[in-house]
Amino acid sequence: MTRSSPGKVYLVGAGPGDPELLTVKAQSLIRRADIILHDGLVPHAILSLASPDACVVNAGKRCGAKKFTQAQINALMIHSARQGMMVVRLKSGDPGIFGRLAEELDALEAAHVSHEIVPGITAAVAAAACAGISLTDRRKSSRIVIVSGHHAQEDKHRKTNWSGLAGDDMTLVVYMPGQDLSGIRTELLEAGLVPETPALIVSGAATPHQRRWLTTVGECHTLPPAEPPAILIVGRSVGRADHAPCAQPSSHALAEPEWNELLSLLRSNLPTTVFDSKSERRIDR
Amino acid sequence: MTRSSPGKVYLVGAGPGDPELLTVKAQSLIRRADIILHDGLVPHAILSLASPDACVVNAGKRCGAKKFTQAQINALMIHSARQGMMVVRLKSGDPGIFGRLAEELDALEAAHVSHEIVPGITAAVAAAACAGISLTDRRKSSRIVIVSGHHAQEDKHRKTNWSGLAGDDMTLVVYMPGQDLSGIRTELLEAGLVPETPALIVSGAATPHQRRWLTTVGECHTLPPAEPPAILIVGRSVGRADHAPCAQPSSHALAEPEWNELLSLLRSNLPTTVFDSKSERRIDR
Repeated sequence: MTRSSPGKVYLVGAGPGDPELLTVKAQSLIRRADIILHDGLVPHAILSLASPDACVVNAGKRCGAKKFTQAQINALMIHSARQGMMVVRLKSGDPGIFGRLAEELDALEAAHVSHEIVPGITAAVAAAACAGISLTDRRKSSRIVIVSGHHAQEDKHRKTNWSGLAGDDMTLVVYMPGQDLSGIRTELLEAGLVPETPALIVSGAATPHQRRWLTTVGECHTLPPAEPPAILIVGRSVGRADHAPCAQPSSHALAEPEWNELLSLLRSNLPTTVFDSKSERRIDR
Repeated sequence: MTRSSPGKVYLVGAGPGDPELLTVKAQSLIRRADIILHDGLVPHAILSLASPDACVVNAGKRCGAKKFTQAQINALMIHSARQGMMVVRLKSGDPGIFGRLAEELDALEAAHVSHEIVPGITAAVAAAACAGISLTDRRKSSRIVIVSGHHAQEDKHRKTNWSGLAGDDMTLVVYMPGQDLSGIRTELLEAGLVPETPALIVSGAATPHQRRWLTTVGECHTLPPAEPPAILIVGRSVGRADHAPCAQPSSHALAEPEWNELLSLLRSNLPTTVFDSKSERRIDR
């Protein structure tokens, strides 16, 4: 399978699992790849887009398959590219967020192998979208902090890290929170979050197995263990995930002068056509 | 244009600007929408995917057009959906990150209008991918903090917010940093970052106008003003954006026993075919 043209490695985000949440570019690269090295979390619905002639390798540690070492994955990417192949290294979510991308970039750069990163929908935004919430909210959350539960547990004796990461005006997103949330709960309460702070767990976001639980920091340890991949989102902007009715039932109503101003704006700004939403006529300009 | 079936509002992330970085779902929704209300940053290359019959409205504050109020945008979404239309509210990046999504969700929920969030590639991951860096790195950065420069400047007298957000082991991403970085520079240095900490500015990520500058926190105020949309990424994981040659030139090489183990793993794990990367033979199983 040696080719004359030089190969290339695409480090591609597969998104949360729904093939519709692949980027257009990722979809095209998966279809054209000669070899795909994928994480264990990338589902069949995405892998089945690959060409029948492609070599599809599970480089993750799931499905009972023995895990490849990072050195083996690097070697396989580099060797395949040197044979002239188009290599897709397919990582769930975005490759640059908890995906060991930096180590693979080091290897590819050291080997002078052409490569390109293709970003993907990361779990934080996928889970928020599935739960119908916004990660930021001008009125409640002006910043987002993303950590991994794996790192968090390693950091148990570095309290300063958490103390700055659990403010009242931020949304905290914990990737891979693990099935036992009692450790994270203790850290967050010790860091000063009130127990009533909303906490949302989303498991299998954007997959047919999606589940979610809205609780509070104080109660999050009582939830049943969430199937991985799961994500924990904490903060006041999370509270709407319960779809409680809102307080402003007429916030969409405009008074007559405001409607007229809106229609005038539409008429002056539109390049082609506008429908008159008051009279239900189309206006051609 | 009244229809019998109920309409729906899709709050859709347009990604950073490259039509190839739309999700498959976003691309399909844009093509099928009856009306598109878009941010000023969504480029023509994406808007041109819309049907010729669609009403395409710039609801942003760019292009010299007068700005719609949030109430007018809400009213237009709700009224259009109630007429049975398929409404796409198209926001650059991901709608849930600094996109005023929460306020629009409030209005849609209060009006009992069916709606769905479709996540998009947010600027942080798009800029990192364009610059060839990973936002996290097991060896250098275990967390990501996302703030907006706009908020940051409002927060000048709330030092505690920055003090927890500028650790040595995190990547700080500042959306909308503004053209004068001297204020942010001062905050970061006061928060304890060393002046040598790498800082990357990416302007127009994933667009034909993309530019980037790698500097340090101490020197970032001396850069020429970056055209919006721009993003500032600070932290040790950013340093590789200069594409310096790496230190491990043979990190991809495996010894003979390791190669044999890799091939054995490939043979045992592959569902269909595998190429023997040592002998360049294809192995059908």
